[in-house]
Amino acid sequence: MSGTLYGVGVGPGDPDLITLKAHKVLQAAPVIAYPAPLAGDSLARTIAAPHIPAGRREIVIRMPLDPKRFPDRTAYDDAAGEIATILRRGEDVAVICEGDPFVYGSFMYLFSLLQDEFPVQVVPGISSLTACAAAALTPLAARNEVLSILPAPMAEDDLRRHLQRTEAAAIIKLGRHAPKVYGVLRELDLLDQAKYVAHATMPGEKVQNLRDVDPADVPYFAMILVRKSGIEP
Amino acid sequence: MSGTLYGVGVGPGDPDLITLKAHKVLQAAPVIAYPAPLAGDSLARTIAAPHIPAGRREIVIRMPLDPKRFPDRTAYDDAAGEIATILRRGEDVAVICEGDPFVYGSFMYLFSLLQDEFPVQVVPGISSLTACAAAALTPLAARNEVLSILPAPMAEDDLRRHLQRTEAAAIIKLGRHAPKVYGVLRELDLLDQAKYVAHATMPGEKVQNLRDVDPADVPYFAMILVRKSGIEP
Repeated sequence: MSGTLYGVGVGPGDPDLITLKAHKVLQAAPVIAYPAPLAGDSLARTIAAPHIPAGRREIVIRMPLDPKRFPDRTAYDDAAGEIATILRRGEDVAVICEGDPFVYGSFMYLFSLLQDEFPVQVVPGISSLTACAAAALTPLAARNEVLSILPAPMAEDDLRRHLQRTEAAAIIKLGRHAPKVYGVLRELDLLDQAKYVAHATMPGEKVQNLRDVDPADVPYFAMILVRKSGIEP
Repeated sequence: MSGTLYGVGVGPGDPDLITLKAHKVLQAAPVIAYPAPLAGDSLARTIAAPHIPAGRREIVIRMPLDPKRFPDRTAYDDAAGEIATILRRGEDVAVICEGDPFVYGSFMYLFSLLQDEFPVQVVPGISSLTACAAAALTPLAARNEVLSILPAPMAEDDLRRHLQRTEAAAIIKLGRHAPKVYGVLRELDLLDQAKYVAHATMPGEKVQNLRDVDPADVPYFAMILVRKSGIEP
């Protein structure tokens, strides 16, 4: 009997925004794995720290965080090999991910490499989408509105078209793409319907009307929420 | 000093898919409110039951669940009045919602009626979106894909256009609209990229390839997940 691979969402940052189920899986799993930058701490590990018992075996998947190089297939291939060895011995492995494992999550690469051979269970987590909406006191979507999740790196024309056709949007992965996004929202006269949230539920959380934000100074972990019917419900 | 209005997401069904933060708010709040059908149990109350201490004052917001009449403004107005009286006395009130309060959630109506007068905190919850993706072992979206959340009651033409333009979609609120959705997905040759999930994380959870589903027999609490790049990551 092989072990089970768990993909465990640990939420957006506040350690209390983890589910009871994730907490239980982390208490029980003998091995815990997570991505981390080449130097420094893993965000997922930091979020989950209060829930990881001392003495667990931990697999640190180090990779460059340069978005142009992400994901690093070699790092994931190596980690998948190491995890497969443990699962074949019959031990469970919990891979922790910030937010939710299946919402633009890094778990997907390990999942695709291991799912054919091993049983997999995914524990959903609070994604940054709902965390940002809660922090901004701004609904993501109501009634029968279409909600579009739009990664900011897309081409400006595509972004414009998607924003024209949707009733609500969350624009994610902002960083250096923020000036382009800001320009498109201004052009579509949507600046007053847009809220900006950075580092939701983490130290340094910031909620602003988008009009008050300098688009040249926006981190990657930031999001813009837009509702055409207004940012009130 | 008035009390705080909490909007608390209690997740999709499994009581262990509630966050530690929601659990703590429910332990501390002297008054708990929730919507319920005209007769029978409240889904949110049922999900949260293990986390609600005995002897709490509870406000049951009864309303017809007929989607054509929802939301019942009178029921919400009456409940908002009752909740406001308690908040003015300085007591906190926790309004519990299945899933997340700001993802097509019923909390929005109370929020809009009470937010000007009282402090509000929203505790995000696991939405049915991520719960369905986890149950189906199907990513919602990866890399820089556009993800569209599409309520099934929309017009067939709009549904077709949105599905043509997005890379991934979650089609929600299916029920009697499922045959229309099934037809559009077949026409766009997307049936093989579509998974069906009903009652995720609840008793009676069902995960199927959409091809194997009878669209004439689909409940409201069901969802279709589509990824054009395939339902594998």
